[in-house]
Amino acid sequence: MTRKTPIIHQQTIIASTRQFSIEQLELEFPGGEMRSYERLVRRSGHGAVLIVPLLDADTVLLVREYAAGLHRYELGLPKGKIDPGEDALGAANRELKEEVGYGASRLTRLHTVSLAPAYLEHTIEIILAEQLYPEKLPGDEPEELEVVPWPLHRITELLAGGECSEARTIAALYLTADHLRHR
Amino acid sequence: MTRKTPIIHQQTIIASTRQFSIEQLELEFPGGEMRSYERLVRRSGHGAVLIVPLLDADTVLLVREYAAGLHRYELGLPKGKIDPGEDALGAANRELKEEVGYGASRLTRLHTVSLAPAYLEHTIEIILAEQLYPEKLPGDEPEELEVVPWPLHRITELLAGGECSEARTIAALYLTADHLRHR
Repeated sequence: MTRKTPIIHQQTIIASTRQFSIEQLELEFPGGEMRSYERLVRRSGHGAVLIVPLLDADTVLLVREYAAGLHRYELGLPKGKIDPGEDALGAANRELKEEVGYGASRLTRLHTVSLAPAYLEHTIEIILAEQLYPEKLPGDEPEELEVVPWPLHRITELLAGGECSEARTIAALYLTADHLRHR
Repeated sequence: MTRKTPIIHQQTIIASTRQFSIEQLELEFPGGEMRSYERLVRRSGHGAVLIVPLLDADTVLLVREYAAGLHRYELGLPKGKIDPGEDALGAANRELKEEVGYGASRLTRLHTVSLAPAYLEHTIEIILAEQLYPEKLPGDEPEELEVVPWPLHRITELLAGGECSEARTIAALYLTADHLRHR
């Protein structure tokens, strides 16, 4: 069943910074209930990609990168924004070269996931990258990212290690394992 | 290897609304590079829980709820904030009663995941809820949530349906399947 969505009576940007905007929505739910909701909009809105670089059938390449939200280093899959004029696969290959030092001859869309659909409009496309070849492009990171090869069948140990917490990375690793099992 | 984290030289709240604050961080990376980062802080900071309600060994209870970020209904796991004075398991059981109409005699912490550690400080605890019994508490939702039982072994069909996009729900479903297989 698809429900009738609430009516947006008013939509106002109530705060704006270099990277973010916060929007206020005045909503009327199908049953008549009125509510005021806030949601976050990211300012450069061309979409984003999360890349699963497969070095071989069971080795995924992770990066260790500073995460300001948690103020610690996080071990996860490489990702980045899609630039204007780029498509998702092109962005994935560029980010892979910048962050990991590889290009991919084979790129496959796995799934598009959201982060927190209740208050974020962000979604990210998960792209499987295979048939890798060494190629390095300069990125805009403040420091070189450390690349960490990890066996795909050992997701549980990765999570137990405490450095990999991001739901998008965890979902993408399981989706990849599932995809490889069924193709 | 654990890297030395960047030094935060300055930390300023640059925007603030009813639900969110945006913080600007002036950072010095270990190699000397200086950067200005923004991150989002949610204003009620007691943490949050995502609940995996298991009706039986292969049936998980999902809810269909309006998601303002995407302006559509999303099919996913129930979740909510931890209230002051509550612990994660208590919050999970309360949210389960409010959103799904069940309480749980057995609650197990599975993992804590983050959303977008690069710019969000949010994390959420995934709680497995078993041995369910009917009990309804009034919630603060603007409308009754529709409860949808789903077979855990059919995650692929759920994702293909296009209504379930949230990385946290996808990660939690795979983590649950893994947990049940190994216990």
